[in-house]
Amino acid sequence: MHAVIMAGGKGTRFWPRSREKMPKHLLDIVCEKTIIQDTIDRVAPLVPAENILIVTGASHADELMKQVPQIPEGNIIIEPIGRNTAPCIGLAALYIKRKSPDGVMVVLPADHLITDAQRFRHVLSAAADMARLGDYLLTIGITPTCPETGYGYLEEGLRKTTVRGEDFYAVKSIREKPALPQAKAFLERGGFYWNSGMFIWRVDTIVEALKKWLPDLHGGLLEIEPALGSDREKSVIEHVYKKIHSISIDYGVMEKAENVLLVKGDFGWSDMGSWDALWEVLEKDEHGNAAHVRGRFVGVDSRNSLIHSPRKLVALVGVEDLIVVETEDSLLVCKRGCSQDVKKVVEILDAKKMKDYL
Amino acid sequence: MHAVIMAGGKGTRFWPRSREKMPKHLLDIVCEKTIIQDTIDRVAPLVPAENILIVTGASHADELMKQVPQIPEGNIIIEPIGRNTAPCIGLAALYIKRKSPDGVMVVLPADHLITDAQRFRHVLSAAADMARLGDYLLTIGITPTCPETGYGYLEEGLRKTTVRGEDFYAVKSIREKPALPQAKAFLERGGFYWNSGMFIWRVDTIVEALKKWLPDLHGGLLEIEPALGSDREKSVIEHVYKKIHSISIDYGVMEKAENVLLVKGDFGWSDMGSWDALWEVLEKDEHGNAAHVRGRFVGVDSRNSLIHSPRKLVALVGVEDLIVVETEDSLLVCKRGCSQDVKKVVEILDAKKMKDYL
Repeated sequence: MHAVIMAGGKGTRFWPRSREKMPKHLLDIVCEKTIIQDTIDRVAPLVPAENILIVTGASHADELMKQVPQIPEGNIIIEPIGRNTAPCIGLAALYIKRKSPDGVMVVLPADHLITDAQRFRHVLSAAADMARLGDYLLTIGITPTCPETGYGYLEEGLRKTTVRGEDFYAVKSIREKPALPQAKAFLERGGFYWNSGMFIWRVDTIVEALKKWLPDLHGGLLEIEPALGSDREKSVIEHVYKKIHSISIDYGVMEKAENVLLVKGDFGWSDMGSWDALWEVLEKDEHGNAAHVRGRFVGVDSRNSLIHSPRKLVALVGVEDLIVVETEDSLLVCKRGCSQDVKKVVEILDAKKMKDYL
Repeated sequence: MHAVIMAGGKGTRFWPRSREKMPKHLLDIVCEKTIIQDTIDRVAPLVPAENILIVTGASHADELMKQVPQIPEGNIIIEPIGRNTAPCIGLAALYIKRKSPDGVMVVLPADHLITDAQRFRHVLSAAADMARLGDYLLTIGITPTCPETGYGYLEEGLRKTTVRGEDFYAVKSIREKPALPQAKAFLERGGFYWNSGMFIWRVDTIVEALKKWLPDLHGGLLEIEPALGSDREKSVIEHVYKKIHSISIDYGVMEKAENVLLVKGDFGWSDMGSWDALWEVLEKDEHGNAAHVRGRFVGVDSRNSLIHSPRKLVALVGVEDLIVVETEDSLLVCKRGCSQDVKKVVEILDAKKMKDYL
């Protein structure tokens, strides 16, 4: 079993912790480990380190390698430019194919939070078994808890089979990010699941799918394949990435393919798209305050706030529903529910050319 | 003309900026100057540096001397223990008496804010002239803007005279910190003024008043007087301070004396008793936000807040009525209107023995 960790995020949404050089997955915003460390530790019982590939951009590679020294350097795949998930997955598939042409490959975003790692691994194992049994493109669907408009939705079809107690369903349709009324309708009707962006398939299955649905990308991969491991590897990848299109695996393959199966991921999931989302998943004290594990915090009449301050003592007095984030050079105080506007701060800083803070 | 700056404050109310070793008057919370620097610069056009005395505690003296290098070291009077304002004023009077037995002495707290320094100096000059004319204990009353219960009130009596365009009134009564209904009644009736704690008198007048109303203290001062300037000075002061009682000049003298006159101080005054009071007096941008002059601040949908962060960029998103204060080791986020509870934070830190933060 092989794992591909997609670590391509930029992430202005966790400013001031996330920066151009420090995307979300490299941050210790949930616990003492960084998110990618947590992601890797979560799959480690299933996948040996030499079978874990991480795909990332050049500007984050050094910090990433520091954070996950257990991963062999050769397993860090550097994309010259971000081209969304389909090229990323195709490139990683080439690397695995050399070692194991019909190996099972699980694709995981680097920056998601999963609270029940054991359940997660059980679902992955069942899906891996299912992938070995047939030419399936397996995707993990999350039971929605609110009419989120930022995610795609998977519509559950007929139940196909059960493996290790996990049910696998046909996918009737994949709906890209819906408008709010539509998202509400999905929740009311039931049978719709958030597209988690986690996939399981055999290498030969996904390569075949890319050939069928994204022939241009597949052509590019064919150019790269013979150069892998040679001096030309980097330059050929650069050459190919320049000409291929940016496209997601969802839009490019999953929405078109007929061999997609859905397995449900009831293991406590968050894509942690914002400080608000982080507060939702963090452990809180009896007043609803979630303080960073390394921070010191004193509250007087204060409730339902997120305190992220690894270095400083934070005192809250008479406040509620705040997000308070401290870094070496910056400080964010944001109303809970407004954290999508943190990107406006980044835009202002960018416009003012205050590059040190970006 | 001589000035006595009373710099005895402890001040937990400006935590985390104010600390045991760093009381309010030593902080640059209003502008680039510290409050005592501002206080001294404000009287400097009237009083030469060699005539400015500062009375302070031993633990703050070094930092104070650093901040006001223009004041001769011999003009820094160190009290061994705080005994409230009457002993402080009596001790300072001894120092002035040696140089100028009938000199005029203005007594000013080190930590007040005055927005119109020119008006302030005009009132002081007029009061000094008045003090030269007769044996008066002159006090400056501030027109109240709200029924504040933290101040004493001076009740205006008959108008006595006018000097340099300033009216001087007899004082009908002095009311110690009133309950709220009483404070409200004072405002409704009119003719009541906040006791600013600023006084003007001749040295011989105040020494005479101390002799009459606080004979024990006067006796102590008589012990100290011959030791001034000798090797014994420090030990005699220590000896006397141990036995004298702690008492304010208001309670000990002003409330009893009959020669008290009131002059009105309409020069924009605040005793800055809390972060809330500071926000009131600071200059604000069009959204009501007051950011520290050395701080960088970005606001998104945020209003009516105080941002005190000399080192870090602060971003506020979707918040209002907050007090945000950053120091090297701590961070305070407090709802405006709740800053009297900042002392509770200090109490908690004290109880938890987190001495580094006190």
